[in-house]
Amino acid sequence: MRHIEQIGDHSFAFSRYLEPIAHVQPGEIITFNTEDCFKGLVTRECDLASETLQGAGYLNPQTGPFYIEGAEPGDTLKVHILDIQPTRDWVVSCIQKPLGGLTPNKYTRMINEPVPEKNWIYHRDEEGWWTCDQNPKLRFPYEPFLGTIATSDALEVVSSLTPFDHGGNMDTPDTCPGNIVYLPVSVEGAYFFTGDCHAKQGQGELCGVALELAARVTLRFELIKHKAIKWPRIESPEEIMVVGSAKPMEDASRIAYAELLDWMVELGWDKLDAYQALTQDGKLYCANMVDTNYSMVAKVSKKLAFAYQEKA
Amino acid sequence: MRHIEQIGDHSFAFSRYLEPIAHVQPGEIITFNTEDCFKGLVTRECDLASETLQGAGYLNPQTGPFYIEGAEPGDTLKVHILDIQPTRDWVVSCIQKPLGGLTPNKYTRMINEPVPEKNWIYHRDEEGWWTCDQNPKLRFPYEPFLGTIATSDALEVVSSLTPFDHGGNMDTPDTCPGNIVYLPVSVEGAYFFTGDCHAKQGQGELCGVALELAARVTLRFELIKHKAIKWPRIESPEEIMVVGSAKPMEDASRIAYAELLDWMVELGWDKLDAYQALTQDGKLYCANMVDTNYSMVAKVSKKLAFAYQEKA
Amino acid sequence: MRHIEQIGDHSFAFSRYLEPIAHVQPGEIITFNTEDCFKGLVTRECDLASETLQGAGYLNPQTGPFYIEGAEPGDTLKVHILDIQPTRDWVVSCIQKPLGGLTPNKYTRMINEPVPEKNWIYHRDEEGWWTCDQNPKLRFPYEPFLGTIATSDALEVVSSLTPFDHGGNMDTPDTCPGNIVYLPVSVEGAYFFTGDCHAKQGQGELCGVALELAARVTLRFELIKHKAIKWPRIESPEEIMVVGSAKPMEDASRIAYAELLDWMVELGWDKLDAYQALTQDGKLYCANMVDTNYSMVAKVSKKLAFAYQEKA
Amino acid sequence: MRHIEQIGDHSFAFSRYLEPIAHVQPGEIITFNTEDCFKGLVTRECDLASETLQGAGYLNPQTGPFYIEGAEPGDTLKVHILDIQPTRDWVVSCIQKPLGGLTPNKYTRMINEPVPEKNWIYHRDEEGWWTCDQNPKLRFPYEPFLGTIATSDALEVVSSLTPFDHGGNMDTPDTCPGNIVYLPVSVEGAYFFTGDCHAKQGQGELCGVALELAARVTLRFELIKHKAIKWPRIESPEEIMVVGSAKPMEDASRIAYAELLDWMVELGWDKLDAYQALTQDGKLYCANMVDTNYSMVAKVSKKLAFAYQEKA
Repeated sequence: MRHIEQIGDHSFAFSRYLEPIAHVQPGEIITFNTEDCFKGLVTRECDLASETLQGAGYLNPQTGPFYIEGAEPGDTLKVHILDIQPTRDWVVSCIQKPLGGLTPNKYTRMINEPVPEKNWIYHRDEEGWWTCDQNPKLRFPYEPFLGTIATSDALEVVSSLTPFDHGGNMDTPDTCPGNIVYLPVSVEGAYFFTGDCHAKQGQGELCGVALELAARVTLRFELIKHKAIKWPRIESPEEIMVVGSAKPMEDASRIAYAELLDWMVELGWDKLDAYQALTQDGKLYCANMVDTNYSMVAKVSKKLAFAYQEKA
Repeated sequence: MRHIEQIGDHSFAFSRYLEPIAHVQPGEIITFNTEDCFKGLVTRECDLASETLQGAGYLNPQTGPFYIEGAEPGDTLKVHILDIQPTRDWVVSCIQKPLGGLTPNKYTRMINEPVPEKNWIYHRDEEGWWTCDQNPKLRFPYEPFLGTIATSDALEVVSSLTPFDHGGNMDTPDTCPGNIVYLPVSVEGAYFFTGDCHAKQGQGELCGVALELAARVTLRFELIKHKAIKWPRIESPEEIMVVGSAKPMEDASRIAYAELLDWMVELGWDKLDAYQALTQDGKLYCANMVDTNYSMVAKVSKKLAFAYQEKA
Repeated sequence: MRHIEQIGDHSFAFSRYLEPIAHVQPGEIITFNTEDCFKGLVTRECDLASETLQGAGYLNPQTGPFYIEGAEPGDTLKVHILDIQPTRDWVVSCIQKPLGGLTPNKYTRMINEPVPEKNWIYHRDEEGWWTCDQNPKLRFPYEPFLGTIATSDALEVVSSLTPFDHGGNMDTPDTCPGNIVYLPVSVEGAYFFTGDCHAKQGQGELCGVALELAARVTLRFELIKHKAIKWPRIESPEEIMVVGSAKPMEDASRIAYAELLDWMVELGWDKLDAYQALTQDGKLYCANMVDTNYSMVAKVSKKLAFAYQEKA
Repeated sequence: MRHIEQIGDHSFAFSRYLEPIAHVQPGEIITFNTEDCFKGLVTRECDLASETLQGAGYLNPQTGPFYIEGAEPGDTLKVHILDIQPTRDWVVSCIQKPLGGLTPNKYTRMINEPVPEKNWIYHRDEEGWWTCDQNPKLRFPYEPFLGTIATSDALEVVSSLTPFDHGGNMDTPDTCPGNIVYLPVSVEGAYFFTGDCHAKQGQGELCGVALELAARVTLRFELIKHKAIKWPRIESPEEIMVVGSAKPMEDASRIAYAELLDWMVELGWDKLDAYQALTQDGKLYCANMVDTNYSMVAKVSKKLAFAYQEKA
């Protein structure tokens, strides 16, 4: 198990143009640290985001890029999420002016006065749950995941706030320890980034800010050579999933189900029968309704999806 | 337990202007039969919907209206779903030209050729599961629910294909036996309708047609006097939920979470703390992405929601 | 020219179930009065809508239904808008809590505080322009149109606030004197309604309330027998247009252009060449971005559209 | 007047990381050539885009970056579009599989078969109009504009197919000779790009491909120091406008009108009175309904907008 330190600044974008912080072999187990989405600057109830982050430049610092040895355009990167451990005993959530599922933002413009900012600070208790300093009724178990996980596009440099076809800021609770994330490789070395760990988050990330955590992450990579995918896929012990990120939310939903249907066709299903199977047994939840794209997750049980495979 | 027969034709709309088929007392347990969404006309693989339903007029016949004694505008109707039993041993799903989450329709117009129609017929097997005659890999357990459940609006007559603020064709798997549905009352007697039972349906109802079932339904009503709600609410043994139905899907999501937030405020929560609680622990799934409005279901555990109630 | 009086109350819905206020022959010229959208209740700067309209029930009273002699399902009703004359010397606009393109509403829910209500009263000056009592910089010419114009659906009763496939509250400046509106006929007699005259309105009707006018309207009807249309069409001296009403706005746009394309195919165009023609020379504006559906208007010059017709 | 040659390859993205092809002084008049969106590769009816462009990498090559001397973050770049002249006698439009307002695409996924590809080639006739070789009914005047015009973001590298808050692929007929485009400056030198000239295009760019032109462009820049804008603004002799680019289209519309409202407030208007003015006299059209974001243009007459300015 190799520990990798971030060299230089964290990145606020998924960029193939940056110098890799490490070259990683498929199969190798690596650990590294991630910052929280505020670079650790919001630490107290009174640190209002609009003031504390002034001049900070950007949000959502990423650890990376990791250069994956052997990765080439047209491959798929398989990321085994092995572990996420807190590196501190507190997390933070808040109401920030430009974010929120039930408030206007840069794209859904309104002329109303903004909702007042507010921070909630949580500390870890003896049972490993997170309890809010301001209101102990707000108490949640530790269900960590990587809010942001991406490879880099061949052409674009994409803000780390954006979920897109290479992953990114999907804020999807299923990118969690025990699951495998599949991402498209568009450049040699893949230029993988991750960060934005959440100690817990509901579906939709309603106010825009989960329980934001600094963490130590353990991953292992594999490559699927010469097999391209179009959107991020996830495998849990029981299910396969696709994350579609777009606006409006029905477009994200269509992407997620259409790609899951394609996946089933790869697994031996007739296209229309797969459409039928997903109609009766698919699941579709909202991962985030607050980011620059919305993310929807379509899933189906492996038992059904692999019905045409020998291992089924 | 009183069995009620449909008098005259089933209705294809939620209408306060129709003659009630029965007057029902709060507390009374009633049973009645429901037709499937095709009035039982699509029975074989070769009964293509476009031909079989020609001249049939409308889809999705409803049983009702039921006049609920004592219901007045401003009340809430509480519907206990007690049981749904198949009245036949087969169900049907199909690809219909004007419906589908991954095909154009009346509102999302495209110039592509339509996807060919296709029917899937399922029969019930000894274990109570439904197995497809055309492909036995398509085999699903019996998880029935009311696809359509509504009270009537004071002004409008609404097609039974539409989910809206009085319920309607929400195609929400949580309107199932064991759960309670709360609906706004807008007219004296509530003018309740239900139908469109599904033996099983995935989230989103992807192709637009679930396992369509004719059934015998058992319900019990209660009234909450002088308490108005704006959108349908659902209570399961473990969770409370709101169904928002609108387009685009983010509007449906906003409605669902905003109403759930209001519900928590009714339960003693500070508004911003409820917003925070839903951010970290809410769930948000898509019930349908195929109807004239899309339906999203926001939910939260009772344990959290009732934290300020004595019974919590 | 026959003047028709509203019998009984104005209607707040398009309903085939109401008693016609008049039977009208195709070809006959009729006049009638229309109320403003507030039933004339908001008359002063201090009449805040939320208070003044309390208990008023509904908004947007319609004159009708008119029974058009000879109209049958499958026909098209051709409405010549001949004249709209003010019946009073003032108009009103306002900010109302539940309406507005840049404020939350029933469907786009937010938790922000609402924008304060405000009324603007305008009087007609000697040149026939409307000048705002509160701010004379707000001064606009008289460019009247019918905000609402509809036939009735065969099944549904639709709120007069809704634009839909039978017309309705489209708030489209092109439904103005000199133009012809084509509406689908779904029931015998068509059950035509109109009202909600606007002295002037920009594209989008941004705050949700135009210069709301009580007026005398002059119309003439024609029937196109055995020719069905799916969405409202408009003909001006220079252009043909289709109004699509849906959400999200891209669905309204798709409807408008797809129907206009169909219209061109009826006029002799090859489908793909019509698609090409609209790409290079179509126009697409937003009529309303505030109602229960958004309305988009696609148009093309008659010169181009009728290129395959002899009269071209 | 200085003519500038593209050095090296054209760019398929707006990138601050590229070497400028020229340093330009504010006030200087420059000319340069632009490629068409297909790099000139689609020249004949039989050059189907899917084959001809295979291996071409990307679409929509841009001329630039131009480094504007003195431009700093927080400034506004004022671009006077002086002239657009064809550099060849033909233009091309086509149906391409992944593009189109009435066909599925990468984001609005459907399972239908794609619409067949088709090219339309036009030649310039003696009157300067463009006539289609395949169908002379398709004949259009020369109304050229810059389909793509942008400054570079400080962080992101954005595909030249995307319209965004720095301009980009807005496909807006109002970015034409005689008008002024205002763009935000986010990096020193602004890193300006332009290209994708259209000989003519309707509102919405329905099939996704206008009359694609290679051209010689003449521009002049000015800087407005220490004045930041959030979205592209346009000034014509008679009107001021804002282009909002987002999905769904109502978000693009909200941006456009909200920024135009802010502009009016800068011009001395009370916020709510400006809201009122735009309600009664604003215009709102769709520039594109086919790109990765949709673009909506809100406009108002200078006469009204400048009512509080001395020059009014």
